Amino acid sequence: MTDAWRVLSLHHVAIAHGDDPTCGEFFASLLGTPNHTERGPGFLEEMYPAGEAFVQTLEADGDGIVQRFLERRGPGLHHVAFRVDTIDAALRDLQARGVPLIDEAPRPGGMGTRIAFIDPAAAGGVLVELVEHPGAGGRTDG
Amino acid sequence: MTDAWRVLSLHHVAIAHGDDPTCGEFFASLLGTPNHTERGPGFLEEMYPAGEAFVQTLEADGDGIVQRFLERRGPGLHHVAFRVDTIDAALRDLQARGVPLIDEAPRPGGMGTRIAFIDPAAAGGVLVELVEHPGAGGRTDG
Repeated sequence: MTDAWRVLSLHHVAIAHGDDPTCGEFFASLLGTPNHTERGPGFLEEMYPAGEAFVQTLEADGDGIVQRFLERRGPGLHHVAFRVDTIDAALRDLQARGVPLIDEAPRPGGMGTRIAFIDPAAAGGVLVELVEHPGAGGRTDG
Repeated sequence: MTDAWRVLSLHHVAIAHGDDPTCGEFFASLLGTPNHTERGPGFLEEMYPAGEAFVQTLEADGDGIVQRFLERRGPGLHHVAFRVDTIDAALRDLQARGVPLIDEAPRPGGMGTRIAFIDPAAAGGVLVELVEHPGAGGRTDG
Protein backbone atom coordinates (compact mmCIF):
# COMPACT_ATOMS: atom_id res chain seq x y z
CA MET A 1 0.00 0.00 0.00
CA THR A 2 1.33 3.43 -0.88
CA ASP A 3 0.79 6.76 0.83
CA ALA A 4 -1.77 9.10 -0.69
CA TRP A 5 -0.28 12.23 -2.24
CA ARG A 6 -1.00 14.36 -5.26
CA VAL A 7 0.28 17.13 -7.48
CA LEU A 8 -1.53 20.40 -6.71
CA SER A 9 -0.14 22.53 -9.53
CA LEU A 10 2.71 23.28 -11.87
CA HIS A 11 4.90 25.28 -9.46
CA HIS A 12 7.63 26.73 -11.67
CA VAL A 13 9.67 26.32 -14.80
CA ALA A 14 13.37 27.11 -14.39
CA ILE A 15 15.68 28.71 -16.93
CA ALA A 16 19.49 28.67 -16.77
CA HIS A 17 21.45 31.61 -18.11
CA GLY A 18 24.80 33.32 -17.79
CA ASP A 19 25.61 37.03 -17.38
CA ASP A 20 23.58 38.05 -20.47
CA PRO A 21 20.76 40.25 -19.04
CA THR A 22 18.36 39.45 -21.95
CA CYS A 23 16.54 36.62 -20.17
CA GLY A 24 15.82 38.54 -16.96
CA GLU A 25 14.83 41.70 -18.84
CA PHE A 26 12.43 39.75 -21.08
CA PHE A 27 10.62 37.99 -18.23
CA ALA A 28 10.46 41.22 -16.21
CA SER A 29 8.77 42.92 -19.19
CA LEU A 30 6.35 39.99 -19.55
CA LEU A 31 5.61 39.23 -15.88
CA GLY A 32 6.76 42.23 -13.82
CA THR A 33 9.35 42.44 -11.06
CA PRO A 34 10.50 39.16 -9.47
CA ASN A 35 8.90 38.72 -6.05
CA HIS A 36 11.67 36.59 -4.60
CA THR A 37 15.46 36.49 -4.98
CA GLU A 38 17.74 33.92 -3.38
CA ARG A 39 21.38 32.85 -3.65
CA GLY A 40 22.31 29.23 -4.29
CA PRO A 41 25.74 27.61 -4.71
CA GLY A 42 27.14 29.38 -7.80
CA PHE A 43 23.86 30.94 -8.92
CA LEU A 44 21.33 33.70 -8.28
CA GLU A 45 17.66 32.61 -8.36
CA GLU A 46 14.78 34.98 -9.15
CA MET A 47 11.07 34.10 -9.11
CA TYR A 48 8.68 35.87 -11.51
CA PRO A 49 5.00 35.19 -10.71
CA ALA A 50 2.75 34.04 -13.59
CA GLY A 51 -0.72 33.22 -12.25
CA GLU A 52 -0.36 30.52 -9.59
CA ALA A 53 3.04 29.47 -11.03
CA PHE A 54 6.45 31.10 -11.40
CA VAL A 55 9.25 31.46 -13.91
CA GLN A 56 12.49 30.85 -12.03
CA THR A 57 15.65 32.27 -13.58
CA LEU A 58 18.96 30.74 -12.48
CA GLU A 59 21.92 32.98 -13.28
CA ALA A 60 25.27 31.23 -13.00
CA ASP A 61 27.81 33.45 -11.23
CA GLY A 62 30.29 30.80 -10.12
CA ASP A 63 31.05 27.12 -10.35
CA GLY A 64 28.08 24.86 -9.71
CA ILE A 65 25.23 22.93 -11.31
CA VAL A 66 23.94 25.91 -13.32
CA GLN A 67 27.39 26.70 -14.76
CA ARG A 68 27.88 23.03 -15.67
CA PHE A 69 24.46 22.92 -17.35
CA LEU A 70 25.37 26.02 -19.42
CA GLU A 71 28.67 24.45 -20.52
CA ARG A 72 26.85 21.28 -21.62
CA ARG A 73 23.59 22.65 -23.09
CA GLY A 74 23.83 26.46 -23.31
CA PRO A 75 21.20 28.81 -21.89
CA GLY A 76 17.59 27.60 -21.85
CA LEU A 77 14.94 25.64 -19.97
CA HIS A 78 16.50 23.76 -17.03
CA HIS A 79 13.76 21.94 -15.09
CA VAL A 80 10.06 21.88 -14.27
CA ALA A 81 8.69 21.79 -10.71
CA PHE A 82 5.34 20.58 -9.36
CA ARG A 83 3.76 21.52 -6.09
CA VAL A 84 2.69 18.44 -4.12
CA ASP A 85 0.60 18.22 -0.96
CA THR A 86 2.95 15.88 0.95
CA ILE A 87 6.51 15.53 -0.29
CA ASP A 88 7.44 12.79 2.21
CA ALA A 89 4.61 10.56 0.95
CA ALA A 90 5.50 11.38 -2.67
CA LEU A 91 9.13 10.34 -2.24
CA ARG A 92 8.23 7.15 -0.37
CA ASP A 93 5.73 6.22 -3.09
CA LEU A 94 8.08 7.03 -6.01
CA GLN A 95 10.88 5.06 -4.36
CA ALA A 96 8.55 2.07 -3.76
CA ARG A 97 7.69 2.16 -7.48
CA GLY A 98 11.39 2.14 -8.44
CA VAL A 99 11.48 5.73 -9.78
CA PRO A 100 15.11 6.94 -9.63
CA LEU A 101 15.51 9.95 -7.32
CA ILE A 102 18.28 12.52 -6.98
CA ASP A 103 17.07 13.45 -3.47
CA GLU A 104 15.78 10.50 -1.46
CA ALA A 105 14.73 12.87 1.33
CA PRO A 106 13.37 16.43 1.07
CA ARG A 107 15.78 19.33 1.52
CA PRO A 108 15.15 23.05 2.12
CA GLY A 109 14.21 25.06 -1.00
CA GLY A 110 13.50 28.75 -1.57
CA MET A 111 10.65 30.60 0.21
CA GLY A 112 10.56 28.12 3.10
CA THR A 113 9.65 25.17 0.87
CA ARG A 114 10.83 21.56 1.02
CA ILE A 115 12.03 20.21 -2.31
CA ALA A 116 13.41 17.09 -4.00
CA PHE A 117 14.64 16.37 -7.51
CA ILE A 118 13.76 13.26 -9.51
CA ASP A 119 16.40 11.75 -11.78
CA PRO A 120 15.88 12.94 -15.41
CA ALA A 121 16.01 9.30 -16.54
CA ALA A 122 12.61 8.81 -14.85
CA ALA A 123 10.92 11.33 -17.16
CA GLY A 124 12.71 10.53 -20.43
CA GLY A 125 15.34 13.25 -20.02
CA VAL A 126 13.44 15.98 -18.17
CA LEU A 127 14.67 17.13 -14.77
CA VAL A 128 11.61 17.27 -12.45
CA GLU A 129 11.44 18.87 -9.00
CA LEU A 130 8.77 18.39 -6.34
CA VAL A 131 7.94 21.30 -4.00
CA GLU A 132 5.96 21.35 -0.75
CA HIS A 133 4.95 24.72 0.65
CA PRO A 134 5.23 25.24 4.42
CA GLY A 135 2.06 24.35 6.32
CA ALA A 136 0.05 24.11 3.12
CA GLY A 137 -0.68 20.39 2.83
CA GLY A 138 -3.66 19.92 0.53
CA ARG A 139 -4.27 23.65 0.04
CA THR A 140 -3.80 25.37 -3.30
CA ASP A 141 -3.95 28.97 -2.10
CA GLY A 142 -0.91 29.04 0.24
CA MET B 1 0.94 54.40 -26.80
CA THR B 2 0.72 50.64 -26.59
CA ASP B 3 -2.32 48.41 -26.21
CA ALA B 4 -3.06 47.09 -22.74
CA TRP B 5 -2.55 43.36 -22.37
CA ARG B 6 -1.27 41.06 -19.68
CA VAL B 7 -0.15 37.55 -18.89
CA LEU B 8 -2.87 35.67 -16.98
CA SER B 9 -0.95 32.51 -16.12
CA LEU B 10 1.73 30.04 -17.05
CA HIS B 11 -0.26 27.98 -19.59
CA HIS B 12 1.98 25.00 -20.31
CA VAL B 13 5.49 23.68 -20.47
CA ALA B 14 6.23 21.52 -23.51
CA ILE B 15 8.49 18.49 -23.69
CA ALA B 16 9.85 16.94 -26.89
CA HIS B 17 10.43 13.20 -27.06
CA GLY B 18 10.72 10.36 -29.54
CA ASP B 19 9.13 6.90 -29.47
CA ASP B 20 10.43 6.12 -25.95
CA PRO B 21 7.25 5.78 -23.81
CA THR B 22 9.06 6.77 -20.57
CA CYS B 23 8.11 10.46 -20.71
CA GLY B 24 4.38 9.90 -21.28
CA GLU B 25 4.20 7.12 -18.69
CA PHE B 26 5.94 9.28 -16.09
CA PHE B 27 3.66 12.29 -16.53
CA ALA B 28 0.57 10.06 -16.61
CA SER B 29 1.64 8.55 -13.27
CA LEU B 30 2.25 12.05 -11.83
CA LEU B 31 -0.70 13.96 -13.31
CA GLY B 32 -3.23 11.39 -14.56
CA THR B 33 -4.60 10.79 -18.04
CA PRO B 34 -4.05 13.54 -20.65
CA ASN B 35 -7.28 15.47 -21.21
CA HIS B 36 -6.50 16.51 -24.78
CA THR B 37 -4.69 14.89 -27.71
CA GLU B 38 -4.04 16.51 -31.05
CA ARG B 39 -1.95 15.82 -34.15
CA GLY B 40 0.49 18.42 -35.51
CA PRO B 41 2.81 18.22 -38.51
CA GLY B 42 5.12 15.32 -37.60
CA PHE B 43 4.13 15.08 -33.95
CA LEU B 44 1.44 13.95 -31.50
CA GLU B 45 0.57 16.43 -28.74
CA GLU B 46 -0.91 15.41 -25.38
CA MET B 47 -1.95 17.78 -22.57
CA TYR B 48 -1.68 16.65 -18.93
CA PRO B 49 -3.44 19.03 -16.51
CA ALA B 50 -1.45 20.28 -13.49
CA GLY B 51 -3.52 22.81 -11.53
CA GLU B 52 -4.40 25.68 -13.89
CA ALA B 53 -1.47 24.75 -16.19
CA PHE B 54 -0.56 21.78 -18.38
CA VAL B 55 2.39 19.63 -19.27
CA GLN B 56 2.36 19.25 -23.06
CA THR B 57 4.23 16.27 -24.48
CA LEU B 58 5.24 16.45 -28.14
CA GLU B 59 6.07 13.04 -29.59
CA ALA B 60 7.86 13.19 -32.93
CA ASP B 61 6.44 10.63 -35.34
CA GLY B 62 7.63 12.12 -38.63
CA ASP B 63 9.69 14.95 -40.08
CA GLY B 64 8.97 18.35 -38.54
CA ILE B 65 10.05 20.82 -35.87
CA VAL B 66 9.92 18.29 -33.02
CA GLN B 67 12.07 15.77 -34.90
CA ARG B 68 14.57 18.51 -35.79
CA PHE B 69 14.69 19.63 -32.12
CA LEU B 70 15.40 16.04 -31.03
CA GLU B 71 18.23 15.70 -33.56
CA ARG B 72 19.81 18.94 -32.32
CA ARG B 73 19.18 18.77 -28.55
CA GLY B 74 17.82 15.33 -27.65
CA PRO B 75 14.64 14.78 -25.62
CA GLY B 76 13.74 17.39 -23.01
CA LEU B 77 12.02 20.69 -22.31
CA HIS B 78 11.04 22.40 -25.57
CA HIS B 79 9.18 25.65 -24.79
CA VAL B 80 7.12 27.50 -22.18
CA ALA B 81 3.72 29.07 -22.92
CA PHE B 82 1.86 31.89 -21.19
CA ARG B 83 -1.83 32.59 -21.34
CA VAL B 84 -2.53 36.24 -22.26
CA ASP B 85 -5.83 38.13 -22.22
CA THR B 86 -5.49 39.62 -25.73
CA ILE B 87 -2.95 38.10 -28.10
CA ASP B 88 -3.48 40.72 -30.84
CA ALA B 89 -2.57 43.54 -28.44
CA ALA B 90 0.37 41.51 -27.08
CA LEU B 91 1.87 40.97 -30.54
CA ARG B 92 1.36 44.62 -31.58
CA ASP B 93 3.04 45.79 -28.38
CA LEU B 94 5.97 43.35 -28.59
CA GLN B 95 6.54 44.27 -32.24
CA ALA B 96 6.46 48.00 -31.39
CA ARG B 97 9.13 47.34 -28.75
CA GLY B 98 11.32 45.52 -31.28
CA VAL B 99 10.92 42.04 -29.76
CA PRO B 100 11.66 39.46 -32.50
CA LEU B 101 8.64 37.28 -33.25
CA ILE B 102 8.31 33.95 -35.05
CA ASP B 103 4.58 34.56 -35.63
CA GLU B 104 3.71 38.18 -36.36
CA ALA B 105 0.00 37.28 -36.34
CA PRO B 106 -1.84 34.71 -34.18
CA ARG B 107 -2.53 31.28 -35.66
CA PRO B 108 -4.85 28.48 -34.51
CA GLY B 109 -3.52 26.35 -31.63
CA GLY B 110 -4.89 23.30 -29.81
CA MET B 111 -8.23 23.35 -27.92
CA GLY B 112 -9.57 26.29 -29.96
CA THR B 113 -6.85 28.67 -28.83
CA ARG B 114 -4.97 31.34 -30.79
CA ILE B 115 -1.20 31.14 -30.39
CA ALA B 116 2.04 32.83 -31.44
CA PHE B 117 5.70 32.04 -30.82
CA ILE B 118 8.33 34.59 -29.84
CA ASP B 119 11.86 34.20 -31.24
CA PRO B 120 14.11 32.46 -28.63
CA ALA B 121 16.64 35.30 -29.09
CA ALA B 122 14.17 37.60 -27.28
CA ALA B 123 14.33 35.54 -24.08
CA GLY B 124 18.03 34.66 -24.05
CA GLY B 125 17.55 31.28 -25.73
CA VAL B 126 14.13 30.17 -24.44
CA LEU B 127 11.32 29.51 -26.92
CA VAL B 128 8.20 31.29 -25.57
CA GLU B 129 4.62 30.86 -26.79
CA LEU B 130 1.63 33.10 -26.10
CA VAL B 131 -1.85 31.52 -25.89
CA GLU B 132 -5.29 33.16 -25.94
CA HIS B 133 -8.28 31.02 -24.98
CA PRO B 134 -11.46 31.41 -27.01
CA GLY B 135 -13.83 34.02 -25.59
CA ALA B 136 -11.92 34.22 -22.35
CA GLY B 137 -10.30 37.66 -22.49
CA GLY B 138 -9.41 38.77 -18.98
CA ARG B 139 -10.80 35.67 -17.32
CA THR B 140 -8.60 33.13 -15.56
CA ASP B 141 -11.16 30.39 -15.10
CA GLY B 142 -12.01 29.60 -18.75
